[in-house]
Amino acid sequence: MTMATLKTDPARLERFLTEIAAFGATKNGGVTRLALSDEDRDARNQLKAWFEAAGCETRIDRMGNMFFVRPGKNRALPPVMTGSHCDSQPQGGRFDGILGIIGGLEAVCALNDAGVTLERDLIVVDWTNEEGSRFTPGTTGSGVFAGKLDREAMYALTDREGLTFGGELERIGYKGMEDFDPRPLHANFEYHIEQGPVLERQGKTIGVPKGIVCLRWYDVEITGVPNHAGPTPMNERKDAVYAFARMASDIFEIGLASDNVVATVGEVHPSPNSRNVIAGNLHFTIDVRGWDEGETDRVCADIEKAVRTHAEVTGTTVDIRRTWEVERAPFHPQLVSMIRETAGELGLPALDMVSGASHDTVYINQFAPSAMIFVPSIGGRSHAEVEETSWADCAAGADVLLNCIIKTCNDPEGVEYA
Amino acid sequence: MTMATLKTDPARLERFLTEIAAFGATKNGGVTRLALSDEDRDARNQLKAWFEAAGCETRIDRMGNMFFVRPGKNRALPPVMTGSHCDSQPQGGRFDGILGIIGGLEAVCALNDAGVTLERDLIVVDWTNEEGSRFTPGTTGSGVFAGKLDREAMYALTDREGLTFGGELERIGYKGMEDFDPRPLHANFEYHIEQGPVLERQGKTIGVPKGIVCLRWYDVEITGVPNHAGPTPMNERKDAVYAFARMASDIFEIGLASDNVVATVGEVHPSPNSRNVIAGNLHFTIDVRGWDEGETDRVCADIEKAVRTHAEVTGTTVDIRRTWEVERAPFHPQLVSMIRETAGELGLPALDMVSGASHDTVYINQFAPSAMIFVPSIGGRSHAEVEETSWADCAAGADVLLNCIIKTCNDPEGVEYA
Repeated sequence: MTMATLKTDPARLERFLTEIAAFGATKNGGVTRLALSDEDRDARNQLKAWFEAAGCETRIDRMGNMFFVRPGKNRALPPVMTGSHCDSQPQGGRFDGILGIIGGLEAVCALNDAGVTLERDLIVVDWTNEEGSRFTPGTTGSGVFAGKLDREAMYALTDREGLTFGGELERIGYKGMEDFDPRPLHANFEYHIEQGPVLERQGKTIGVPKGIVCLRWYDVEITGVPNHAGPTPMNERKDAVYAFARMASDIFEIGLASDNVVATVGEVHPSPNSRNVIAGNLHFTIDVRGWDEGETDRVCADIEKAVRTHAEVTGTTVDIRRTWEVERAPFHPQLVSMIRETAGELGLPALDMVSGASHDTVYINQFAPSAMIFVPSIGGRSHAEVEETSWADCAAGADVLLNCIIKTCNDPEGVEYA
Repeated sequence: MTMATLKTDPARLERFLTEIAAFGATKNGGVTRLALSDEDRDARNQLKAWFEAAGCETRIDRMGNMFFVRPGKNRALPPVMTGSHCDSQPQGGRFDGILGIIGGLEAVCALNDAGVTLERDLIVVDWTNEEGSRFTPGTTGSGVFAGKLDREAMYALTDREGLTFGGELERIGYKGMEDFDPRPLHANFEYHIEQGPVLERQGKTIGVPKGIVCLRWYDVEITGVPNHAGPTPMNERKDAVYAFARMASDIFEIGLASDNVVATVGEVHPSPNSRNVIAGNLHFTIDVRGWDEGETDRVCADIEKAVRTHAEVTGTTVDIRRTWEVERAPFHPQLVSMIRETAGELGLPALDMVSGASHDTVYINQFAPSAMIFVPSIGGRSHAEVEETSWADCAAGADVLLNCIIKTCNDPEGVEYA
């Protein structure tokens, strides 16, 4: 079935994206808009103003998740949801997350321009604290919505200054009095930048992920013997930095040798971290991701073994703990196909892929048919101020989103993604 | 020539050491007595009280160096100096530095007990800010005294809170109004713990270093590309942590393969140091020391080459800079022999060695005949709260110091260490 397609307004989309990027703008062209900060609050106020001007109702739940509802003809039918998050990493980019909300806003505006009322309600959502930079873990808003995280536990999270999530949510005025539960959802789309280099390298405009990779997090603590850097002979040292160096080198190379699994050592905290003292202690983290759970666990086993071996060889002891684990999230096949086909209808080159990054949709996917739409990240850069996506690609992704919204919102009663 | 030897009082020495360790005592048995802190001030007040009770004159110069002078018969003769420092590393040990001052104090008391007046003045010194933990660089008091560091530049040093050296020196009441210059010095002895495991391992009580090793410091900055840990394929990464791991592993092994040179990576600062971000940047330090300047420079050249090679292989760029360099300090051969012989006279097993750690004597050695006396560090541990030396060994070193003081202070006019 080929359908006539509706288009978004690229100029308006660019204007929305440019204006929202002012909230927390950094001097190098990125944004620092940490969850529940003043900048987050100001961006939320702006989103609310725009959505309400476009005829949407605003609902805010007890986690501060914002739901902008465009009423359909038959409000009793399960609605379609789209959206993402407006918080950012510290010195992060101006597309990560916010593009998905602005894409939804632009879809609403394009539907308004075309005078289209859809069968079902459309809900555009801003999930609270996706990044987890200020309050860890991330994806807390969607996690609580999905019933997978405990609201009170999330309220009790503290940032580095000791401020609580609950207190800050209240302070910025976004702690709703009651929950909003539009379930069951008919379908859920999240529109996002790729955050990797694959689309650009392959010259494709639309990425069609079949799902999100599985994730394993480790915290590793090496214990050696701190000592003066001068008088301690090399062969009597139990140097935690040396032990770490051997481990981290192997971890990267184990990832490199694997087909589709990636392994990252992101945090390194030696102690005392002093120029003339042999480190007696070092804490580091490992992040392992892959589409294939079996291959990912094999890589993890190799990493654990390498870590233990290097501890032994360097005379140190090691405590390696898996602190977080997320199964892979395969998206709904019919919605994935719909995104691929819609790109085709719009003449946009598309690529089947997986998402290496986690998203709020990991949680929503657990109870609602879900899929994601990716557009290219220039140079594959993300979580950095230089993060960039061309305006044309932003509009292309919004067009795919708009037309997938139209299709699913117009699914008649009784049609379900089984 | 064999001489009758005088002995110190082990019980009094232990009491002095125990009482002074209360200033900045940590709950794990160490001390945190950072330069120009309240704890440093309180320890200085105690030292002043003890030395004055023992009949010494106190002189304090513009750097806060404290000189406790025990007058000799002929005050016009060049005096003998001994001493060390009473500041400590954060969570450091209770022997490092302070043992050399207390050893001098106990020598004064033992001389008093024996009713001995020596020919020459004896000066026991407390050098300001040897450790350099709070205000970097260290050995600032002795460096300015030696004319090798600029007093005003040292006054301008700031700690992490932005407080200045000059301001803090004034605040604790130890900024003298004028300098004290007892030069020329007839001889200088520094009594110190070994801070390494060699004496204990070899079962010796007195270490007789022929000098202090040379030192090279590097600051290295790796630049990769920061990116999201999920969607970036391993073979497209420019991961600064991976580059570092390869470098640090090699640096240790280059040191290990060398005969007498040691190499330490003590500080590691990746950026952004975030669990799910590939580090785009990493700063680390290298400390290289050895007795043989040529071998040390060969090791440095190998390290520099390895660092550049690993940067190339990992697709990163690197800036490696030698930021500090100290030539080795060979002590005065006659004074070194005197220490060895004095140990023999006292029946103490002695070991010829080198000092891997730097000391204030590096500066004093540049203009005055100098040597050091070492006693064992249990387990070779130093710059840590577990730092330990037996009371018997503390007394043994003080006995050697006392008798070397007697010998040199009684050198008649005209006798010089050429």
